[in-house]
Amino acid sequence: MPRNPFINAGALVVADINLAGHEPRVAIGELLRFMRYLADDDTIIIDEAVARAEQATGFRNIALANYMKAFGDIQHAPELTLGVYFHQCAIAMSCRQLAMAGRFLMHGGFYEPGGPRVVSAQRARRINALMLTCGHYDASGDFAFRVGLPGKSGVGGGILAIAPGKAAIAVWSPGLNANGNSLLGTLALERLTEATGWSVFAR
Amino acid sequence: MPRNPFINAGALVVADINLAGHEPRVAIGELLRFMRYLADDDTIIIDEAVARAEQATGFRNIALANYMKAFGDIQHAPELTLGVYFHQCAIAMSCRQLAMAGRFLMHGGFYEPGGPRVVSAQRARRINALMLTCGHYDASGDFAFRVGLPGKSGVGGGILAIAPGKAAIAVWSPGLNANGNSLLGTLALERLTEATGWSVFAR
Amino acid sequence: MPRNPFINAGALVVADINLAGHEPRVAIGELLRFMRYLADDDTIIIDEAVARAEQATGFRNIALANYMKAFGDIQHAPELTLGVYFHQCAIAMSCRQLAMAGRFLMHGGFYEPGGPRVVSAQRARRINALMLTCGHYDASGDFAFRVGLPGKSGVGGGILAIAPGKAAIAVWSPGLNANGNSLLGTLALERLTEATGWSVFAR
Amino acid sequence: MPRNPFINAGALVVADINLAGHEPRVAIGELLRFMRYLADDDTIIIDEAVARAEQATGFRNIALANYMKAFGDIQHAPELTLGVYFHQCAIAMSCRQLAMAGRFLMHGGFYEPGGPRVVSAQRARRINALMLTCGHYDASGDFAFRVGLPGKSGVGGGILAIAPGKAAIAVWSPGLNANGNSLLGTLALERLTEATGWSVFAR
Repeated sequence: MPRNPFINAGALVVADINLAGHEPRVAIGELLRFMRYLADDDTIIIDEAVARAEQATGFRNIALANYMKAFGDIQHAPELTLGVYFHQCAIAMSCRQLAMAGRFLMHGGFYEPGGPRVVSAQRARRINALMLTCGHYDASGDFAFRVGLPGKSGVGGGILAIAPGKAAIAVWSPGLNANGNSLLGTLALERLTEATGWSVFAR
Repeated sequence: MPRNPFINAGALVVADINLAGHEPRVAIGELLRFMRYLADDDTIIIDEAVARAEQATGFRNIALANYMKAFGDIQHAPELTLGVYFHQCAIAMSCRQLAMAGRFLMHGGFYEPGGPRVVSAQRARRINALMLTCGHYDASGDFAFRVGLPGKSGVGGGILAIAPGKAAIAVWSPGLNANGNSLLGTLALERLTEATGWSVFAR
Repeated sequence: MPRNPFINAGALVVADINLAGHEPRVAIGELLRFMRYLADDDTIIIDEAVARAEQATGFRNIALANYMKAFGDIQHAPELTLGVYFHQCAIAMSCRQLAMAGRFLMHGGFYEPGGPRVVSAQRARRINALMLTCGHYDASGDFAFRVGLPGKSGVGGGILAIAPGKAAIAVWSPGLNANGNSLLGTLALERLTEATGWSVFAR
Repeated sequence: MPRNPFINAGALVVADINLAGHEPRVAIGELLRFMRYLADDDTIIIDEAVARAEQATGFRNIALANYMKAFGDIQHAPELTLGVYFHQCAIAMSCRQLAMAGRFLMHGGFYEPGGPRVVSAQRARRINALMLTCGHYDASGDFAFRVGLPGKSGVGGGILAIAPGKAAIAVWSPGLNANGNSLLGTLALERLTEATGWSVFAR
């Protein structure tokens, strides 16, 4: 069963697990509240127009959910799982909100220094490891090679990067390179780690 | 053209590049001298029996070299390139020698603090990135997930791991897991990073 | 674009082409009338329970139609194309009806000797060629090797086989072999061609 | 283990089986005598220049033999098996000789009508079935679709086609299409079956 949430198949499985027999709007609401908490910002919303557009044209994801359903990897009706997935893909955030939401990954799992724990230290390390090895589609290795930070890219042109113990960074620029990652965002992060020495591979 | 030296195809291409029109024994000698220099130990030798055994039974590598030759990715006669490759696979080293040879990757490319530069800082970071993403065959992601260090595993049961700025570590235990990596060596490194916090993904 | 109607992807594309902007029930009705004409039997019907069951559980075909839609290979909404496909899969026929419907493939494209033309002689040959090379899923080569007749197998356990100029044969036995073809049906056809010399590969 | 002699991997396995512990020249001699017998022509020879050229540049076949050796599918040293293979690929024949050598496949396994049996009737049918489904590399289905005869194509531009009970046909024209089959030879055979009705798929 695909379990890696940084690739589409795993993201759908995780959406299906989060659904857990509830109505899609319940699961979506819970996810939205979690993001607002992480970013410390209650103005974060879901862009319904984006969610609807995905639902109308996301044939590849519809195919993927049904294919996994045929293997028993999806528990709910595929259209319900897809409803959760398309809405979580439509959470609209600013760079500041996204960077704030990533703080717990730089703080070893804590919300902030001295704050409550969001996930265990081990889980924070493992999420960072998955982001570094799988966060940039087929160019994940290239991002590790050039930038050297755990990072998750989205087709909207945003990238969240984590420098453990140092920073949570969000960049956004909608022009994508051939691998579907932000072209300028990637270059900006490469220059940032070159200038700061924040690469996890530097001494 | 495969260029990643941490997978067999790329390792053969790099052996072919190092051959550079010379006799295989010249390229092998140069490589051996480089390893002796890195490890600061002139007693390192090539185990001729291992090299001969590989040459007699390494049908997969022979297939791979000939397949790449058909694509023009190998410049020399495949048997010459394979000669270099099988001999470099037969360099015999102790854990101490292997760890010493890896110091330049923990020191940002320097031989030792205050010493001469072996490779640039950028190249040291990039080698570490390749080791983390590709150093453990099909279990490279698993090693990153559990151990969190750049590391290169060999079928002999050895693993070289780098904690940038902190340590170069060599472990050896010949029992391999299903992915061809040292079973106990991997567990030892997992405990080490758990105990020390040296994972590159920890704050 | 997949165009081979003897594999699922192509069958869906052909169903989509037959739909041609009409209501699914129109396309389904036309197909049913064609089958009744070929078999000379107006009692042939669609088993609605089978069609509904397919629609409720055919996740692989739903995935396939949506995947092709993402590539622009399906013109209609996937659920409409799938509606046509699931109904044509649910046409219920006896062995006699199926064999009668296949006569035009043994008669070089004619409905019957001296009768009207259904398809051109070239098209009849080409349909037979596709049946022989692709009519038994991953075991198509095995069927050609052992039986030596153009034949189309279905997961319901039926097989239509054509001995050009000699016979149109239908067999049915619901027990399937590992490749999803009728186990006893295949054996019966192997014995038939052994006994009659009807293999297209025999002198 | 690959066993289909009409694809390279299987052809190498069959060459290895024919070698059977003998010297390569013994196996090659036996094969040559068999071809001379089939074609009723003792002037057929092996073109040593072609065999040597293949041996010097056939890196893909060398790779394939070594890869199968790694799986235990080749019994002899790969260079011996390859020696047999490269020489059998270098048998030089005219169209007339090739067509004569194929007669037993049109005569149900007999050398000629009333003559001795070369292979059983079942084996002749099965060889024809393999030729039809696998005789033209990735374009085997296309050849069945357009020509409708069992046929084996070679990269030298020759094609042997069998019309069971009617003819053994050899064509040669060195210009190859994108799939590595004789362009004009294929067209000639398509016209021949159109004109004669010899397609195995015609009534």
